[in-house]
Amino acid sequence: MANLQLEKLAQKSKEVSRGLAILTDAQKSQALKKVASRLLERETEILKANEKDLASAKKDNLSTALTDRLTLNSKRIADMANGVREIAALPDPIGEVAEEWTNKEGLKIRKVRVPLGVVAMVYESRPNVTIESAALCLKSGNSVILRGGSEAIHSNLILCRIFSDAISEAGIPSHAVSIVEETDRKSIYDLARMDRWVDVLIARGSETMVREIKERSTVPVLGHGKGVCHVYVDSKANLKMAEEIAYNAKVQRPGVCNAMETLLVHKDVAKDFLPSVGRRYQEAGVLLRGDAETRKVLPKVQEASEEDWSLEYLDLILSIKVVDSLESAIAHINLYGSGHTDAIVTEEKSRAEKFFMGVDSAAVFQNASTRMHDGGVFGLGAEIGISTQKLHARGTMGIRDLTTTKYIVVGQGHIRK
Amino acid sequence: MANLQLEKLAQKSKEVSRGLAILTDAQKSQALKKVASRLLERETEILKANEKDLASAKKDNLSTALTDRLTLNSKRIADMANGVREIAALPDPIGEVAEEWTNKEGLKIRKVRVPLGVVAMVYESRPNVTIESAALCLKSGNSVILRGGSEAIHSNLILCRIFSDAISEAGIPSHAVSIVEETDRKSIYDLARMDRWVDVLIARGSETMVREIKERSTVPVLGHGKGVCHVYVDSKANLKMAEEIAYNAKVQRPGVCNAMETLLVHKDVAKDFLPSVGRRYQEAGVLLRGDAETRKVLPKVQEASEEDWSLEYLDLILSIKVVDSLESAIAHINLYGSGHTDAIVTEEKSRAEKFFMGVDSAAVFQNASTRMHDGGVFGLGAEIGISTQKLHARGTMGIRDLTTTKYIVVGQGHIRK
Repeated sequence: MANLQLEKLAQKSKEVSRGLAILTDAQKSQALKKVASRLLERETEILKANEKDLASAKKDNLSTALTDRLTLNSKRIADMANGVREIAALPDPIGEVAEEWTNKEGLKIRKVRVPLGVVAMVYESRPNVTIESAALCLKSGNSVILRGGSEAIHSNLILCRIFSDAISEAGIPSHAVSIVEETDRKSIYDLARMDRWVDVLIARGSETMVREIKERSTVPVLGHGKGVCHVYVDSKANLKMAEEIAYNAKVQRPGVCNAMETLLVHKDVAKDFLPSVGRRYQEAGVLLRGDAETRKVLPKVQEASEEDWSLEYLDLILSIKVVDSLESAIAHINLYGSGHTDAIVTEEKSRAEKFFMGVDSAAVFQNASTRMHDGGVFGLGAEIGISTQKLHARGTMGIRDLTTTKYIVVGQGHIRK
Repeated sequence: MANLQLEKLAQKSKEVSRGLAILTDAQKSQALKKVASRLLERETEILKANEKDLASAKKDNLSTALTDRLTLNSKRIADMANGVREIAALPDPIGEVAEEWTNKEGLKIRKVRVPLGVVAMVYESRPNVTIESAALCLKSGNSVILRGGSEAIHSNLILCRIFSDAISEAGIPSHAVSIVEETDRKSIYDLARMDRWVDVLIARGSETMVREIKERSTVPVLGHGKGVCHVYVDSKANLKMAEEIAYNAKVQRPGVCNAMETLLVHKDVAKDFLPSVGRRYQEAGVLLRGDAETRKVLPKVQEASEEDWSLEYLDLILSIKVVDSLESAIAHINLYGSGHTDAIVTEEKSRAEKFFMGVDSAAVFQNASTRMHDGGVFGLGAEIGISTQKLHARGTMGIRDLTTTKYIVVGQGHIRK
């Protein structure tokens, strides 16, 4: 059955988007600063709505991790406001001339950055994604339709309302940001077929959810990818640095896509490296699964199965493999990885370069934790997701990834001969 | 049933692609120059194979237009060779640093252009697409799997063979270019599910074919879009120039996507403009379908139905509408157009700017024929297609559109706090 209410909302978003495309940067930034102020002023309302979500979470026995992601407090609201101010301060990508030239017949060709139009954003859990997505879309001249998870619906509704009110005060139509109140799967699938109004759907969530959306969607989908991320400790690594990176990549926040799932260690340093980091993992409650060589050094470690090498644990579990060479590490990553984020720890630049060229992933790191692959950390203000696709956008996606280009061509009566 | 032979071919393409990614520009250009020479030297073989296709075309009663597109001769082979030389001379997009910065913690971030990997190319009819696609893919460091139409199979096989032989002489693996010999639909659908090996599928052909591929594909598809293109003759147009553009856009080659399908004329100039261009259209055998206002000026013209405004005729048929204002022209184009190429003829820059901002299409033109939207004309050497999608590439697609980016990040032990 057609979803007329949602259709109307999407149509309104499209209408409004035409006006957003021609806003000046000053107008957009001014509106975003107003959003930041209003978030702080209306803290009590936000916390009250968030309490309702937390009460449902308790009733539904939501896990501690998920409940934590759902919880708002003064500090988190202040962080949100700061994030919006950072986005406001970024350079405006719209109107940027990506390329410009004159052809041999004198045709003047410009490739200019323009907004996508209407972005539909499907996500779960963390209410701050509501504000980040809305801010990134507005800054890039797009209207956005938010479809968050049921667990955060009260928080999302008030946040979206505050955002709408604030931009409306600043003279931007409140419909630039709207929220889908229905939180059943059907509302996602309905949205995904509204290609007449919606220009792109960004899907953040489980691998299964993203795949199911892609299969049903007539709207182009940008999927936030699965992360089977690796840290490879090279024979030429600074082992103290390697330990800090390997520990951070697994333990600092295991439930996210850029956390490490498999640790690869060069055979020449396995004996020196593994015992100390192994102790720290065990103290942190990390369950280790290793190959035969790993278990020679750390005998108490469980045996890893073939399946382990391609699992995204999203938990305090880690698979460890000892490899013969840099080349074997690269081959392992290309075979079992998900093309997300992979790091090498090495002091030798030439070995890092080989890793960079050989590993076919959205981001390759030398001497840094995979957890650093993040729009905020990179300085993009925030991210709308991390893409493991090769088309359109790869890696962390910021405001420029919410744009497309348009050829603007000026002739003097040019015709085709 | 699995298509093991095709699977093997695709796997081989993937293997080879890793080496192509690190070729220098000199190696690629050298190989392409060799291809150009060999095409000229092996002309007799090419023409002989082409004769077989032409004989089948005759037997199958292929239309004159299609037979013309299929036909090769010395001039067309020389054009192909020149095209390959032009592509060889283009700047190499691979390794280009698209963006580069250091974050506030000292993490060095680079966004570098890298090949997509394996490109599958599905197309019809014109054998020169075989050479152009292979050359564009090699220049951008990709391996390519060609799947042309059955009508051109003999020509395509020999052209692909010459290409392979020539690059192999230049030290590049011959499997960088391969061709699917099966020309049934199933081979396309099989290819479209080989996401393990194929990174992108480019579909050129009828709207129905492109849609059917998209629906079945697990490989990301870049579809060559349908073109319902407009020329709008403004009240401030130079009417002589407008006539040449409107005539060229319809008549010069009506069977292609960037030909005009609907002519929009401002009411203030309809009486001055339509009679003369109308005579020329009739002399050229163009069937005209107009709205009521058009028929007041050209009474012999058929009545256009509502359906006409969204038809891609790809033939000597033209719909004509008289509009009240620039704004009505923009609204008509956004409602009925396909977002391909739309032109305004006007002497006033401010009116052109309004058209550029208002029309949501891949390319917007002032004072030039829509037929000029072409990679070769633009100076891109050739094009792999024209995209009407907003994601990844929009408008004519050249070598840069056959690349993706990769983040290369260098830290000094950076971890996430």
